[in-house]
Amino acid sequence: MTDSNDSDATLPYPEFGIRPGEVAGELPATFDAGLYYIGRIRTPWTRRADCPKNARESDALCTVEIAPAFRPALEGLDGTSHVWLLYFMDRAPRDLLVQVPNTYGKGRGTFALRSPARPNPIAMSAAQLVAIEGGNLIVRGLDCLDGTPLLDIKPYFASTDAIPDAVVGWHMARRNGDSGPT
Amino acid sequence: MTDSNDSDATLPYPEFGIRPGEVAGELPATFDAGLYYIGRIRTPWTRRADCPKNARESDALCTVEIAPAFRPALEGLDGTSHVWLLYFMDRAPRDLLVQVPNTYGKGRGTFALRSPARPNPIAMSAAQLVAIEGGNLIVRGLDCLDGTPLLDIKPYFASTDAIPDAVVGWHMARRNGDSGPT
Repeated sequence: MTDSNDSDATLPYPEFGIRPGEVAGELPATFDAGLYYIGRIRTPWTRRADCPKNARESDALCTVEIAPAFRPALEGLDGTSHVWLLYFMDRAPRDLLVQVPNTYGKGRGTFALRSPARPNPIAMSAAQLVAIEGGNLIVRGLDCLDGTPLLDIKPYFASTDAIPDAVVGWHMARRNGDSGPT
Repeated sequence: MTDSNDSDATLPYPEFGIRPGEVAGELPATFDAGLYYIGRIRTPWTRRADCPKNARESDALCTVEIAPAFRPALEGLDGTSHVWLLYFMDRAPRDLLVQVPNTYGKGRGTFALRSPARPNPIAMSAAQLVAIEGGNLIVRGLDCLDGTPLLDIKPYFASTDAIPDAVVGWHMARRNGDSGPT
């Protein structure tokens, strides 16, 4: 386990940097818990600029490669229409508290955004489960970089996960017709 | 890092254990990434048996305590109706691949379940944001233990997160009227 300074020094995220109006904090000196990468997500996108801005904009089929040791945990997932994929945005900085998204220009707190830059850069996407093939998943509806480390797969339960009338305050206020969460 | 037998012996989760039909795997020898606990969730429930079976069954107000260093990241979250809370189920075993839930009796893969026991025990709940008070959140719709470590807060975007017609194969097949994801 490295401390936060070591990991900051070695991470390759040239696309990120502090913009005017952004605020970075000091991260704790040590981690509190650890993560296993349980697989990798294969997508058509190898640069951040090429990724779809909104996962629902893309019909691309992606492959979720599950490490062989974890494949028995897929038992019973067939017949499920959508899955949550949790993955680790390992190229994102973790110390940004207030961010100025490229497209908006207004600073907002990290917890009010879905930016990959956050203290624990865990992303979650609801993807359509198209097929299970040889211990891997074929899915539709992702927007992440090729090779992104996988953390978890969960079935999507509409009874607890679907809130169609939820609103995001600052996003409503923009009223410009863009419905994306980036 | 201990092997699965050692971790069984040292973790305080008396409620968990291998039931007939369950399968445990061997976890990797080292972690691939680290997590910071950014706060704690305060709920009325101190024992697993007391937690609501389904978060939507409970109207209890819970407090999400944000560590002071991360409070600037709440900027702009006001006016948002629902948030995703990601938290770490730090008492759950991580090596179970096939589980036999108490209430069903049939073994299913960890990735087909929402059980807290999983390789990376990250739970996610969509909670109603009732208020932001003194840098903490007051929310409704949680079912976790008091003191659960917080990992992330994200705004709920209906455009990407709400899939009201999603179905879970094995759950549909049960056809017993219980709509919970446990």
